[in-house]
This record gives sequence, structure tokens and C-alpha cells, in this order.
Amino acid sequence: MSLQNPVFIPGPTNMPEVLRKACDMPTIDHRSPQFGAILHPCLEGVREVLKSDSAHIFILPATGTGGWEAALTNTLSPGDGVLAARNGMFSHRWIDMCQRHGLDVRVVETPWGAGLPADKYEEILKSDRDHKIKAVLVTHNETATGVKSDIAAVRAALDAANHPALLFVDGVSSIASMDFRFDEWGVDAAVTGSQKGFMLPAGLAIIGFSDKAMKASQSAALPRTFLDIGDMAQGYANNGYPYTPPFGLMNGLKLSLDMLRDEGLDNVFDRHHRIAEGVRRAAAAWGLELCAQSPDLYSDTVTAIRTPEGFNATDIVTRAANEYGMAFGVGLGEVAGKVFRIGHLGSLTDAMMLSGLGVAEMVMVDLGLNVKLGSGVAAAQEYYRHGSSKAEKAVA
Amino acid sequence: MSLQNPVFIPGPTNMPEVLRKACDMPTIDHRSPQFGAILHPCLEGVREVLKSDSAHIFILPATGTGGWEAALTNTLSPGDGVLAARNGMFSHRWIDMCQRHGLDVRVVETPWGAGLPADKYEEILKSDRDHKIKAVLVTHNETATGVKSDIAAVRAALDAANHPALLFVDGVSSIASMDFRFDEWGVDAAVTGSQKGFMLPAGLAIIGFSDKAMKASQSAALPRTFLDIGDMAQGYANNGYPYTPPFGLMNGLKLSLDMLRDEGLDNVFDRHHRIAEGVRRAAAAWGLELCAQSPDLYSDTVTAIRTPEGFNATDIVTRAANEYGMAFGVGLGEVAGKVFRIGHLGSLTDAMMLSGLGVAEMVMVDLGLNVKLGSGVAAAQEYYRHGSSKAEKAVA
Amino acid sequence: MSLQNPVFIPGPTNMPEVLRKACDMPTIDHRSPQFGAILHPCLEGVREVLKSDSAHIFILPATGTGGWEAALTNTLSPGDGVLAARNGMFSHRWIDMCQRHGLDVRVVETPWGAGLPADKYEEILKSDRDHKIKAVLVTHNETATGVKSDIAAVRAALDAANHPALLFVDGVSSIASMDFRFDEWGVDAAVTGSQKGFMLPAGLAIIGFSDKAMKASQSAALPRTFLDIGDMAQGYANNGYPYTPPFGLMNGLKLSLDMLRDEGLDNVFDRHHRIAEGVRRAAAAWGLELCAQSPDLYSDTVTAIRTPEGFNATDIVTRAANEYGMAFGVGLGEVAGKVFRIGHLGSLTDAMMLSGLGVAEMVMVDLGLNVKLGSGVAAAQEYYRHGSSKAEKAVA
Amino acid sequence: MSLQNPVFIPGPTNMPEVLRKACDMPTIDHRSPQFGAILHPCLEGVREVLKSDSAHIFILPATGTGGWEAALTNTLSPGDGVLAARNGMFSHRWIDMCQRHGLDVRVVETPWGAGLPADKYEEILKSDRDHKIKAVLVTHNETATGVKSDIAAVRAALDAANHPALLFVDGVSSIASMDFRFDEWGVDAAVTGSQKGFMLPAGLAIIGFSDKAMKASQSAALPRTFLDIGDMAQGYANNGYPYTPPFGLMNGLKLSLDMLRDEGLDNVFDRHHRIAEGVRRAAAAWGLELCAQSPDLYSDTVTAIRTPEGFNATDIVTRAANEYGMAFGVGLGEVAGKVFRIGHLGSLTDAMMLSGLGVAEMVMVDLGLNVKLGSGVAAAQEYYRHGSSKAEKAVA
Repeated sequence: MSLQNPVFIPGPTNMPEVLRKACDMPTIDHRSPQFGAILHPCLEGVREVLKSDSAHIFILPATGTGGWEAALTNTLSPGDGVLAARNGMFSHRWIDMCQRHGLDVRVVETPWGAGLPADKYEEILKSDRDHKIKAVLVTHNETATGVKSDIAAVRAALDAANHPALLFVDGVSSIASMDFRFDEWGVDAAVTGSQKGFMLPAGLAIIGFSDKAMKASQSAALPRTFLDIGDMAQGYANNGYPYTPPFGLMNGLKLSLDMLRDEGLDNVFDRHHRIAEGVRRAAAAWGLELCAQSPDLYSDTVTAIRTPEGFNATDIVTRAANEYGMAFGVGLGEVAGKVFRIGHLGSLTDAMMLSGLGVAEMVMVDLGLNVKLGSGVAAAQEYYRHGSSKAEKAVA
Repeated sequence: MSLQNPVFIPGPTNMPEVLRKACDMPTIDHRSPQFGAILHPCLEGVREVLKSDSAHIFILPATGTGGWEAALTNTLSPGDGVLAARNGMFSHRWIDMCQRHGLDVRVVETPWGAGLPADKYEEILKSDRDHKIKAVLVTHNETATGVKSDIAAVRAALDAANHPALLFVDGVSSIASMDFRFDEWGVDAAVTGSQKGFMLPAGLAIIGFSDKAMKASQSAALPRTFLDIGDMAQGYANNGYPYTPPFGLMNGLKLSLDMLRDEGLDNVFDRHHRIAEGVRRAAAAWGLELCAQSPDLYSDTVTAIRTPEGFNATDIVTRAANEYGMAFGVGLGEVAGKVFRIGHLGSLTDAMMLSGLGVAEMVMVDLGLNVKLGSGVAAAQEYYRHGSSKAEKAVA
Repeated sequence: MSLQNPVFIPGPTNMPEVLRKACDMPTIDHRSPQFGAILHPCLEGVREVLKSDSAHIFILPATGTGGWEAALTNTLSPGDGVLAARNGMFSHRWIDMCQRHGLDVRVVETPWGAGLPADKYEEILKSDRDHKIKAVLVTHNETATGVKSDIAAVRAALDAANHPALLFVDGVSSIASMDFRFDEWGVDAAVTGSQKGFMLPAGLAIIGFSDKAMKASQSAALPRTFLDIGDMAQGYANNGYPYTPPFGLMNGLKLSLDMLRDEGLDNVFDRHHRIAEGVRRAAAAWGLELCAQSPDLYSDTVTAIRTPEGFNATDIVTRAANEYGMAFGVGLGEVAGKVFRIGHLGSLTDAMMLSGLGVAEMVMVDLGLNVKLGSGVAAAQEYYRHGSSKAEKAVA
Repeated sequence: MSLQNPVFIPGPTNMPEVLRKACDMPTIDHRSPQFGAILHPCLEGVREVLKSDSAHIFILPATGTGGWEAALTNTLSPGDGVLAARNGMFSHRWIDMCQRHGLDVRVVETPWGAGLPADKYEEILKSDRDHKIKAVLVTHNETATGVKSDIAAVRAALDAANHPALLFVDGVSSIASMDFRFDEWGVDAAVTGSQKGFMLPAGLAIIGFSDKAMKASQSAALPRTFLDIGDMAQGYANNGYPYTPPFGLMNGLKLSLDMLRDEGLDNVFDRHHRIAEGVRRAAAAWGLELCAQSPDLYSDTVTAIRTPEGFNATDIVTRAANEYGMAFGVGLGEVAGKVFRIGHLGSLTDAMMLSGLGVAEMVMVDLGLNVKLGSGVAAAQEYYRHGSSKAEKAVA
């Protein structure tokens, strides 16, 4: 597959070369002040991206999965109740993780393509009189279906039920690409990784904990060492780390945060929205429907597009890779073969997106779908023509 | 301007990252065998790209302009006659260089957009009974107009006139992207640079000399030191160089030659042809004419597209850069403001080209040209759909 | 601190630039065959480094600490007995991890500077008639003290006791730098990381499991998800990974394994021994003693040097960093302030080591220690003079 | 040869990785403002390094040899008189270049190891009543012998003779490493390259012209195009370049100038002096003499060390490369086999220098010279101990 073409998998994303160069550091002594000069700007910058004044930030040498596990094991004890909805592959995996750790998960089965049911959450929380539920889990952006959920509504459900459960949010494919409001939404644990909105290689789990979550960590009985945030906090307090830190990746994160700040977080979100909207208009021009059930659910980082009955959507991904050297995402789990996914997060320009849409069109025509060459591209172009300059400049 | 987008200037070209990494070498001792292990594969590989068995290859730390000057000063003496046609900016510059060196240039003025007039060359050569003309200059590919000339025809003209003049070819924007036959065409000096078909940074002038040109160098009286191929040949014979060599760039060239060999030279030329043909079909779909006067002249590395009377073609380039972060080429010299140029040489995929065409369309619509969004892209897609895989894979 | 100077901390080690460049990859689709082409050579190469025919290799996006936790949680259940000796900071940490996971640790307190007491292990194992001890933990190379332990002796103890406990070895600072014999020693779980002998950035936990350990993983009740080797094995079987893999680092590991193979594992070990022996002779020339109690315990990857009573060894490290831009290791835990450490593992040449010894001498003289400038360097030179060429060449 | 070890050839020098990364740029449009943002800081920074207010700076895609040729051809006409002394290989080459260009060179033969004879220059200039001598050539630092000449004295000679000749200075191995005063010394053309004090790859000829030299360029009749500073000046005035510029190398130069400014030019010179003095003390400790005849001539960028009669100094260089993977410089021309050279310019720390001295000692002992291991290192250490911190920090 060509390394010249951009990728359109929903993460890891296209990485600006300048970020990769920042990651590519010679060895430093991680017990020297050089490390502190990398660590602290990372912690501050992530807090800023979360729109939080007080979140406790932890950066672990792991992936988003490790971040989820850190959120659970640092705050909960075996047998604790957890409330979660399953509306895609990633919410499914989180539920599975809870079960492996002996948590008592109340699963709300939800159609793949629907958002998280805040009303059902409220109902269940209200009925949980003795507060057996210790944590509510929410996937902000279901990468499998391209569905964005309403975290504020879940917070409102908790508040309406006057329920003390912690609110955990999987923001792996939303944070740094879509608006995220840790403080305003009353999030207790937010989890993401380096390889999505931060435009870096995989290898960092990035998490934010509220004071309440920090307090919970003191009595949490699930075992952990590598992912223990107490050790991590103690290290940070001494400009250190509990073990060898991935200082190169963290140095990249430091620069990524500078880039996001330079572009302006709201401009970053606007750019993601504009590029995503172009993709959606292209899909409409192709006569295809989205997996996401309604416009309020449309994700600005990934679009899952349904193909006609009887057509194997995975063929699009395979042919794009083999014939045109371009990577898209396959459907996962329940929607395997029914959707293909176009990732459009991280470091991306309108021009790059046009190449993705152009290739997708060629592939669909090759495979006999009733799609007109240039149609989706034109729909996106018409949208992109109105307002590209601001964001383009910022991606330099 | 975005560094994420590909560039569509007709050189320097998009550089595969792996080549840039090969250039980025720590310091070696250039008097050690490490240097010879870089130098000799370069010399052999360039010879292969020129399709020559016997050309003497020289790699100078200069640009194409330095390469031209090396060709002249190493073979000619003040007052020598030179035959050249002017059909674009680069042929113009070569004529100017000859004049600065006190050569007696017979200039055949030729329309910009036309090819080199082999018939006029033949006429002039036949009338040059006492062989005052020592060299015939030909620009293989006029980067300013997107016109490819017929070197074999010029060789035939020389042969028909039974004229002993040396045949010099500027292959800066053709070699390694379009077919070039040093031996078959009886070329005496071929000149190119690192930053076009070789997909490297500028900084290497790459030249091939025939035995006849080598012989001429022994009596050539034009002064030179930095560009002296005698010093260079002596250095090479000892695995060395007459001064500090640009070993990093040369290490990149070594890998570039491997990549060209791996893809297969003919596949490289086919890929350039396919991508170029897509661009030409897009231009036709836009209702625009090419600067090149007829299909036999169409260049496979750069297309100069005429815009309607009264429209400033340079505005397209300016707006593409400022609003969409993408670089195209302006018209130069006689065709300034009348054409804009799309470079499509070096490391390029169909997908990348679609992004260039997509942006060009948006810009033209923005500027009020009567162009339909998606029309050029669709024309290119239709062409690209039939046969991309072979070359795509090779560009990895 | 200078980034030009080599580092002499006992890991992360000096990284060959070519390895860092291999890590610095553009994004690939980790669900494509491109990933399998990175993964499988890594698994095979690590197995080779472990000198095993059958070990099951797992490469996790974590550090050595994560690797230890993976070894424990994938094989043991809460309350299981574990036998371990504490003879330094890293064996201490492993014991602490076991306790956090609710394992019943039998700790053999051992002087810092001594090796692991195989005889006491044997005694305890023999007395453990009902086989409550499920795992025996051994730190092959105590990075804190520069002490190498005898794994074969521990295996012999297990065999003498006819005890079925699993044998776990922390090889973080030994594997790929010192001889390691997974099969011959009957190791059940070996753990290392990317940032030591493999000369890469931190970020990969690399572990090998025996068939017996794999079998244990089926009934192990300690909870885990991120570090679950069952998920990992299932991913590998499909050329995949249970989540986003750190493909860049793994691509670096693939090249690192090639480099180790090219140099020859035994040559790598010889080089480490030679460089280490030079350091030890320098220490003797300075009149200083090693932390390691006897020559059979001397580590070839790190040397901990005792300073005279009343002198704060940490001052050496601080001054070397501040005044000469060079990083050495401080004493940890019980030997804090009593020793300083010189790391000499990974990518290192005799010449680099001389610069480290030269700086250490200057620092010690600056601080008033009774050391003669040039004395340690001369002792090392005398040793290095006899046999450098083979390994030097291989480190290119 | 090891790429891990520093090099001690007198250029190209050890390159800070951060500079190489700055050179390694993706393609930009060199006709866009992005290029001007690289070019102008380079011109200003070089002027600052030359300690000039008014020098016209030109940066050509060539090497120092090309820079010399640019100085000559842009200011002189065939038959012009030139005064030059030959005291080493590089002054020899400059004289040869003048002769190839048909200049009338008055050569003052000078012992290799001596400085330029300002008194003889004065004598000759005084006797040149009709001012046939148009230029006086001076090699500031003879890289072949490690001899620094006194430019101010040559200026004084010109002034004493009231002679209008231009003063040309080859500062290839001095500028940016040793004090250079363009304005104060009344230099008319200064020439250097990217690969020495600027710590970059070879590929840029960097020259400064006085107003007087600029005026001379208008009537200079030596032919040139590639190296024509008139074209260059016209390009710069439009933020452009007369042909494709080596923007990557220039981007590296821009950063190099920032690094020199950050360290402080005088600190850079002090650091070079300190490191050089350590090397000289080492040579004294070895009982060896320098090629430079007296302390006032000692170069701070390269030291040429004489070996005893009957010993082939080149063997040292060969053995260091083959057995220890380290590069030193051989003797050239008249002193071939009689001296070996240690380069100590550009990016270098005391610690790196100690490794070079340490290896040199091992090699000399290996080859049977009467040298004591550690002796030279100790002499350098003693000197380096007093004052390293300031400069070390700056080289980070």
C-alpha cells in the first residue's frame, strides 16, 4: 500500500511530520529536569483540551484500552455496579472489560447507530435507590458507527436522579477533535489516546480524573500497578515517573498541544465539522445512508456509510487498499459487511479529503455500485469552497 | 501553506519520506570506503536510467543550471558556434548562458507551445559547411509550456547533415520520469537534477557525457574548476571527490535509483503517462486548452493549461496557495498570466492527483470561471480506474 | 544537558539513529497485511534472542513494569504463593507488585550487592510440600546494584526440589545484552522492554511464555484486559492486535533484531563484556569498589561503584550532568548516596565508553576524590586495545 | 565504521541532529513567501556571524570550492593580477583555480606550517605601482596544516602600500568557529561552506561581498552563470532565487544561526579554543610536535600533529578507522604521511573530544609509538576541568 496517500481509517490518524520528528528524540536522562520540562506542559495542555480547570491528568505508556482499564481499576472495587449501554464495538469492549474485572454491569442494549439512551440511564439510576451503581460509562463517539452521544444529557440524568455514581467517558475518538467539556459536563474520568485527535503514534493513554475520582482511588480495591495513578501522581510531584517514561511520545504530545493551541481548539473543531460535513454530503450524493440514525448523532471524526443490501461493504475497503493504495475502515461487529467507514480526524485538509472521496468513488464504480464518478467529490467541493482558508493555514 | 498537502509545482517534486531519511545521514569520512559505497551505485544507476551502456556519469553538488554550465564549459571554447531553439523559459535561459560564456549562438525562435523544429535544425546544420557549430542544444521537456520535444528527430537531423556537432539535451524535467535513450539517440551530454524525477531535494546536478564529449573536454578552453569533470573523474577513480561531496544527497540518490529499479523504469514512465493523461482529460472537461500545440508534444511531467482571454491565470495559483494550501505553477515569461501549470512528476499517486484536480476546480469556480465542480475529477477518475494497481504498489 | 554526548544511565540506552528512523513511520492501516509483515518477524526474532525454540512471544504497548504485571496476572490467581528474593530496587518493586495483587509472597531478604540465593530457594521449595508456591521470581540482572544472578542455579533448585512452580525471570536489563537461555534454563516467563538491549525508545513490554505458562493462563484468575495474552494471541493468529498496535516501535524492533543478528548475539554479549570489563578496571584504577560482592556477580550492562564513606555519590551524577552534560545513574533505595552507576548496555562503542570514563574522572577530581586524571581511562584503554575491531564494525 | 562515534575529520563536522531535522523538509513552493521566510533570516544571520553591518551575503547551492570560484569570477577579468601565498593544500588549490581562469597569479611560496607572510605581501604590493594586482588572496585557516593566518596584518599591508586590490579571504574552516571580522579587517570577499562551523551537510557555499566587490562585479569579465551573484541578488530582491534553491539546507542554516546566536558567538569561539587547547596539551603530553610553527599560528578548528621520522602518520588514521571506528584526517600534499589531523570544530563537547584523544592514544600505542595510555587524555582533562559548563549547556 502506498505510504504517499493519506489514510482514512478512523485512527491512528495522519501524523504531521513535525510531530513525528518531535517524538524522535535521542535518549535523555528521565531522572533529570529535562523530563519535567516535557511532562508538565503535557499535563497542562491536556487539561486545557479537556476544558477543565482542575482535572488530574495522567499520561500512561499504554493505549486507549489501557486508559479504560486505568479508569476502572483506580476507582472501583470487585462487585461494584456499573451502568453502560452497548451501541457499538467500543462500548461493547468496555462492558467486556468491566465483566472481566468482576464488576456488576447493567447493560442497556441499544441499536448500533443510535446514541446512548440518557432517558433509560435516568430511569435506571432513579431506581438504584441504594446506589449500587458506582459508575456510569459513556462512549462519547462510537468509532464503529460514527455516532456521537450527548454527555451533557447523561450528566443531567445523573443529576435528575441525584445519583452519586462516577461519570466515565470514553473520548478516544472525540477528544481534541470534537468539543469536550470535562468540567461543564461533570465528567469524573475521561479517557483518550495519542493516536487520534493528538495526531501521534499510538502509545499513550491519556486520562483526566476529577477530584471525586481521585478520592475514589484511595479505596478502590481492584488490583493494579502498571496503571496505578497513585504511583503516577507521586512521580509527577517529583518531576518523575514511576518507571521509564515514553519521553519521546510525550515530547510529541507537548508539540501537538502547541499546535492545537495555535490553530485554536474551536477552529480545530470547526475544521473537523467542515470536513465531516463534506463527507456526509458526498454520501448523500452517492445515494447512500449513514449508519448514524439522525443528524444530531453525526460524528465529526468518522462516518460509517451503509451499502445496499446484498453488497459486502468490506469489498470497498479491500479494493481501495489493493488497487488504489488507500486505507478506509471496515465495518465491525454487528455492522460488519454492512458499512464501510471513512475516518476524518486529526491532521487533515479539505484537499486530502477530496482524494479520499475520489478514490472511494472509483472503488464503488469498480464494484458495480450505482454511483456517479465525481458526484460525491462535487458535493464536498461545493461545501468546502465556503470557508477553508482559516483552518488550512493552521494545519501547516 | 499546508505541509500536509502534496505539491503540484513542476519540481521540486513530492519527496518520499524514505528518500529524505536516506539523505539525512550523520557525518561520514568522505575519504573512507564508506563514500565509495555510495558513489559507485549512484553512477551505475544513473547510467541505467539514461539507458546507456557507456555514458560517463558525473554528480555535482549543484542544480540543473550548474549541470548545464558543466556541459558547456567542459566541452566548448570561447567563440564556438552553438545551435539552439527558444520555445520556452528554460530553453531561453540556456541560450542566455551560452551567450554569457561568449559562445556564438544561432537561435531558432519557436512559438511557446511548439516543439523544437528538427527540420530547421537540419537546414541550418546542412548549411554549416565548415562546422562552426560545435553543439546543438535541445530541451527535452520545456517545463514552462509542458512541451516534449523529439530528440530522435534532432539526432536524425544531425545525421542527415552528416554534422559532427555534439548533441546536448536538457533532461531536467524528463529524465527518470519520461523515456530517455542516451545511447539510441546519440546524446553527447544529458543534464538533470536531483529534485525532479529522482524525487530528492535540489542540490545535485546529474550529467552524462558520451565518449565524444569526454574527448572534447580535453581541449575545451572555457574556464571551470568547481564544475570541472576532469577533476571529478580523477576523484571517482580513487573512490573520492575533488572536494567535500554531498554524501547525504547522494545516499538518497542511491536509494532513489533502487526505488526506480524496483518499480521498473517502464512502469515509472507508464505511471507518469497515466497520471498526466488524467490531468489532460480534466482540462478538456473544464473546456480549457493546453499550451502544448498538439498531442505528440504533450509532456507527461507537467501540463500548462491556458485560461480564457482576459483572465489572469496566476490568480489560480495565488488563490490555491492562500485558500487551500496547495501549490501549482504560474506561467513564466511569454505565457505569464496566460497559463497555469500542474506538475505531475516524481512521487505521485492517482489519489494525490485527484486532490490537486479537486482543488483546482474549487479555485476556478471561486474565481468565476465556467467550470463545473467534479467534472475534471470525474474525467480523471474514469481514466485512472483502468490500471492503477501496478504502479500504486510500486510507489510504496 | 548536551544531546551530543552519549548517556550512561543503565537504560534507556543510546539509540542508533537508524533504529529511531525505523520507528518514525507514517501511519499504516494496522488491519492490513502491512502490520503482519512487521509483527511476525518481531515474534520470531525475539524468540531467537531468548534462545528458545518454542517460547510464545508477546509484545505489548507498555514498559517492563507492564511486562511484569502481564507475567503475573496471566498466570496466577489471588492468594497464590510466590517466592522471591529482594536484593535491589527492581526485585523490591516486583515483590511490591505481587503484594498489590493479593499474592502471598515469601520474601528472601538478601544483601544489596549479593546475588539471588539459589540455595535458600531450594530449601524453601523443598519445604513447600503442598506446592503453595506457584511461581518463583528471579531478577536476572539487578539494575540497582549491577548484580547478575544465576538463573540456571535457580532452575536447579526447582528441579532438586522437584517443585512444579513456574520460573519467572526479569530480564529487563539483561536480555539482548547478556546471554539468556530460555529453553536451557527452563524459564516459564521472561520479561524485558524495548529500551535496553534492544536500543529503542521505551514503550514495548516484551515477554516470552513457556507452554506451561500458557496453560496456566487458562485458569489464572487475576483480572486483566489490556495485558491479557489470550486476546493478544488471538490477534496475532489473525495478523492483528487486540487494539491499536504501536507499529512504529515494532518496526524499530524488527530492525533491531536484524542488527543483533547481523552483529551476532555472541558478539553482542562479548562487546558488552569487553566494555564492562574496561569500566571495572577503571574503577579499580580509581581505587573504588563495586557494589557487586564478587566477580561472578558482575553485570555486563551496568556497574554500580561505591564511593568512600562520607561522600555523597549522587553529587557525581549531579555534577556530571550540570557541568559536563553527561548522564550517569544515581544510587537507588538502600544504596542511595552510596553508589553511582555507569550504564554500559545497548548501542555503545569503546570510544564512547572512554568519554564516559573521562568525564567521570574529571567530576571525581572536581569533587575532591583521590582519583588521578587519566588513570581509569588508561586502564580501560589497555583492555580495549585487545580486540575491538569485530564489534566496532558491527555497531555501524 | 561506526556511525555512533563522533568524527574528528576537520569537516564536515559532527552535525547536531536538530539541524539535520531542520534540513529534512517536505517540498515547499520556492516561489511562495515560505521561501522568503527562510532566505532572509539566513542572509541576516550570516552577516552577523561575519561581524559586518553591510556585507552582501550570497548563499549558493555549491561547496566552498564553488564559493571561491564565485568570488573570483564575479570580480575579476582574464589577465588580472592576483597575489597569493601557498602554505598548504587549500591555498594551493585556490592558486590553481586562479590559473585555470587565466589570472596572473603572483605566488609567494611559504613553508607548510608557517602563516601567510604579511610582510612579503606588503613588499610586493608596494612594488606593484600600476596596480596590476587586483586581488589579494588569504587563507584564514589552512585546514591542511592547522595554521591560522593574520588577516588584520594583510589588511595593514594593503593599507601601508595604499593599494586598491580587493582582499579575498578563504574562511571555510574558520568562519563560525573562530573570530572573523569582515568590516574591521576590510575584507572584500569572504567564503565559507555549510559543512564546517555551521554544522550542516555540505551543499551551501556562503559568501560575503563588500560594496567594493559588488561594484567590481559589474565589470568583471570572467564568465559565470550558475555562480553569478547578479542573478542571485536580483532573485533575493524578489524573495526568490535564480533557480531551484536548496531550501532544506537553508532552513538548516537558519536554525544553525539561531543556535550560534543562542550560544553566543564569543562563547562558540571560546569553546573551540578550549577544546583545541586540550588537544594541543594532549599532543605535548604525547611528546609530539604540531605542524603549526608557533603558538600564534595555532588553529582552533584543526590540529595537525607531526609524527616521528620514519613513521607513516597515515597509519594512525587507517587503524583508527578500521579498528576503532573513528575518523581522523590524513596529511595532505607536502605533509602527507608526516602529520595526522584532529578536527575539532563545529558541534563538539569536551566529552566527545576525550573519546577522540582516547582512541588516538590506543592507536599510537598499537602502532608502537612511544606514547603512554591516558597521558594525553589526562592533559586535556586537566585543562577542560576549568570552565566547561557554559559552553556545554549551549550545545544542547
